[in-house]
Amino acid sequence: MPGSTICLYDTTLRDGAQGKGISFSPGGKLKVAKALDAFGIDLIEGGYAASNPKDVAFFADVKALELRHARIAAFGSTRRAKISPSADAGCAALLAADTPVCTIFGKSWTLHVTDVLRTTLEENLAMIGETVDFLRQHDREVVYDAEHFFDGYKVNPEYALRSLEAARDAGASVLVLCDTNGGTLPHEVHAITRAVQEALKHPLGIHAHNDGGCGVANSLEAVRAGAVHLQGTVNGYGERCGNADLVPLIANLSLKLGAPFASEVPMMKLTELSRTIDELANQRPNPKAPYVGDHAFAHKAGMHVDGVRKVAHSFEHVPPESVGNGRHVLISELAGGSNVLLKILEMGLNVDKSSPEVKQVLRELERLEKEGYEFEGADASFHMLVQKVLKSHKSFFEPEGYRIINEHRVKDGEAIAEASVKISVGEETEYTVAEGDGPVDALDKALRKALARFFPSIAAVRLTDYRVRILDPEQSTRAKTRVLIESTDGHRTWNTVGVSENLIEASWEALVESVEYKLFLDESEG
Amino acid sequence: MPGSTICLYDTTLRDGAQGKGISFSPGGKLKVAKALDAFGIDLIEGGYAASNPKDVAFFADVKALELRHARIAAFGSTRRAKISPSADAGCAALLAADTPVCTIFGKSWTLHVTDVLRTTLEENLAMIGETVDFLRQHDREVVYDAEHFFDGYKVNPEYALRSLEAARDAGASVLVLCDTNGGTLPHEVHAITRAVQEALKHPLGIHAHNDGGCGVANSLEAVRAGAVHLQGTVNGYGERCGNADLVPLIANLSLKLGAPFASEVPMMKLTELSRTIDELANQRPNPKAPYVGDHAFAHKAGMHVDGVRKVAHSFEHVPPESVGNGRHVLISELAGGSNVLLKILEMGLNVDKSSPEVKQVLRELERLEKEGYEFEGADASFHMLVQKVLKSHKSFFEPEGYRIINEHRVKDGEAIAEASVKISVGEETEYTVAEGDGPVDALDKALRKALARFFPSIAAVRLTDYRVRILDPEQSTRAKTRVLIESTDGHRTWNTVGVSENLIEASWEALVESVEYKLFLDESEG
Repeated sequence: MPGSTICLYDTTLRDGAQGKGISFSPGGKLKVAKALDAFGIDLIEGGYAASNPKDVAFFADVKALELRHARIAAFGSTRRAKISPSADAGCAALLAADTPVCTIFGKSWTLHVTDVLRTTLEENLAMIGETVDFLRQHDREVVYDAEHFFDGYKVNPEYALRSLEAARDAGASVLVLCDTNGGTLPHEVHAITRAVQEALKHPLGIHAHNDGGCGVANSLEAVRAGAVHLQGTVNGYGERCGNADLVPLIANLSLKLGAPFASEVPMMKLTELSRTIDELANQRPNPKAPYVGDHAFAHKAGMHVDGVRKVAHSFEHVPPESVGNGRHVLISELAGGSNVLLKILEMGLNVDKSSPEVKQVLRELERLEKEGYEFEGADASFHMLVQKVLKSHKSFFEPEGYRIINEHRVKDGEAIAEASVKISVGEETEYTVAEGDGPVDALDKALRKALARFFPSIAAVRLTDYRVRILDPEQSTRAKTRVLIESTDGHRTWNTVGVSENLIEASWEALVESVEYKLFLDESEG
Repeated sequence: MPGSTICLYDTTLRDGAQGKGISFSPGGKLKVAKALDAFGIDLIEGGYAASNPKDVAFFADVKALELRHARIAAFGSTRRAKISPSADAGCAALLAADTPVCTIFGKSWTLHVTDVLRTTLEENLAMIGETVDFLRQHDREVVYDAEHFFDGYKVNPEYALRSLEAARDAGASVLVLCDTNGGTLPHEVHAITRAVQEALKHPLGIHAHNDGGCGVANSLEAVRAGAVHLQGTVNGYGERCGNADLVPLIANLSLKLGAPFASEVPMMKLTELSRTIDELANQRPNPKAPYVGDHAFAHKAGMHVDGVRKVAHSFEHVPPESVGNGRHVLISELAGGSNVLLKILEMGLNVDKSSPEVKQVLRELERLEKEGYEFEGADASFHMLVQKVLKSHKSFFEPEGYRIINEHRVKDGEAIAEASVKISVGEETEYTVAEGDGPVDALDKALRKALARFFPSIAAVRLTDYRVRILDPEQSTRAKTRVLIESTDGHRTWNTVGVSENLIEASWEALVESVEYKLFLDESEG
């Protein structure tokens, strides 16, 4: 591990936005930049200089943003063949973006020069050198992205190096080796980066993708081989299998390799950074994400949980709080008493392992798991189960019943689903009806409509996930059905479960528990 | 890359099942074993020998399964402290599982010996040696999993090696270095594996987790350093951030490092393996999964797509078809023209590849797949789709409509589900009603009751499998629902599919197609 400072270069807004389903609103792009800056990212690639109006608007708007440390880069390519940079529209757009840094990509792979660009090897070198020179003449710092570098180097190392020299000699501040197809393996990245470092004696960077499942490792190996500039995206957004994920990369470099960064990086805010960017990109956080996922420090098997209680650090590669995450205990069929105890303690209740309450909860849990319940994905239902066993459960309303009608007459066309729901709160009864896209949608709408009069906060609740599991498919439609529901009120997210031979009953149970839990949360926090 | 044969060891059913939300039905576990065997996996870890009744049942049932190549391993631990293996319940359970291979884990990290097991370092070595010896005496092959090996080695390499020697000297066939906490980095795995290899001169294995985002790379580095036994799970299921994912691992080893496997591994079926296991675990396939994800070979950026058109391999790290995947997101394996043609020929129809009918079927298939249909698991629905496109479809009856009432009044107790169905056959109309355990059960009963008067053979049909998949859980209950139904008449089994925003509609569609297909079969055979 070299002692040089590592420059963190984020391309969430450019290469990340190429990922399927990722797109930011104009305001969202500015918020991403703000969050990256707050976290200590050095360079933020804002988008293509000449691609679309949204990127152009970003470069204009970001100038008004007060960034404490980060600088903005505009992305583009070398000039087209046989034209001068000053006559090239792409180069003009790079200048128009008016950023302190320009990042341009060029070709290092002979095949791409001859068969994709369809120009000569010499002209390609001129395109690189002249474009870098042109931008330097206009006082831009130039980051040079050598596209398909590793593939090119394997075929023709001499030419690949010449392409880098063209950029270096024209004044590029860093030469970024890009594994554009993402399939290079870590030991190859290490060997090639080291060879280039020895040949060129110039700052190198790495831009990796995850097509071989090695995006993070490839970036680490490049840094270990001498690269001092690290490109990636938050949460690994990006085309195909994604870019190298900056989140575990920064954690590995900081917590395990002690790499110095140019700016102070608040590691305890890593989880928050990851969630904020997911929120802005409208992505569901990946619960299995290294370091920052909901499950990253979750313990399930009884013997492990027992071990964690004894010597926490012996079962965790880093302390969860070091990256702003927390330890979670999962309740499952493999659970032992110590799991359940930890979970109850997490709820702030004062019991110990030998308490009769813990045994009672355990017995109830076992009974329900035999019936097909599963609480590891349903924290809110577990919470209410404990409350019920401990007799501390409060009923906010009584569900009196429901009726759902599904009807489809072929001659009239459309299928309809209508639900009526009856609930009571104290002496008062409410009876409402609603239509939906299916029986469960209708039931959800009717239930929340019925409650809204008594509990206005229920209006903010919406379902964010609905999963159905048929427990014994071999028993066909008479099998037990487990429904898992995820709900949110915009601030918090919780999960509930229902089980029945009847899908509608299982859904009803999970829906009722979801709104009950919301009311409990409101009361305990209000 | 050493030339030794790599043994592929799958722990999807044991360590994979520790992952949050992963659980297999008893029948599902057998299907997983069957799929792994068909793919050429050498060793299948079936579960804990002494953990729960489901695992115990698996070891009993799997003996009746005809596996072409794979052997089954039962998982357990070294004996408890200060007790002989023959008096240890865990050791007895390992024998009771009656598998050719036993995998046991033991401690290599002094901290775990003293603070978790709370025994002496010498007693731990005796526990390892005596347990391996005991199992060898009973003719089991023993795989030894050295838990927390890398962490232990860093603290006290001498003791970590002694723990391995205890297992080796007692007859373990392979010593598996486990990165149990998953936080070791690739270069550390390489260096330590190499050092152990030089010290012990015995076959080594690797068991990695993904807590640092390096599960795949760590496994590759161990193999490059000399490990010949590779543990992992399909799709990277597993606790916290998951186990090393066998899918990209096998692809990297086979396609990039030319590693020889013990059995022939059909790489073109890699995508199918990944999807099959996801289906059995009721997991949504990860679209970004390296090699096998829906987006793994999807191209979004304009210039890339253009490049792909010019020189396909210059933008793809491997040809998508080499792993059974495709270049376009929405075209499934089935949708290749030649597959569709084969399928149509299989039905006894006389067409060739350039027939307009084949193109028509392909277009209709693409349209339906975009809507969420999946025909790989629904042969009967595909059959009828082709008949409809070729205008050779015969209607035996007209489904006129249905109405379902679900009702639950808390004060009367039970929830009821009642369905009425109206169908017509020629000039005659039948209108029937039935009760069921849930809306779909009621619908199925009413439909078959209505048809029985006209088609007595329908009485023999029953549903043997019913699966529900919510296609976009993020859209909650308004998401599209895909229902897959398996039916049998006692002689034949067939599968149908239905898709709708409304679960009842999707089920109705699949139920109607199921009975239609039965009537078609009867006619074409009678």
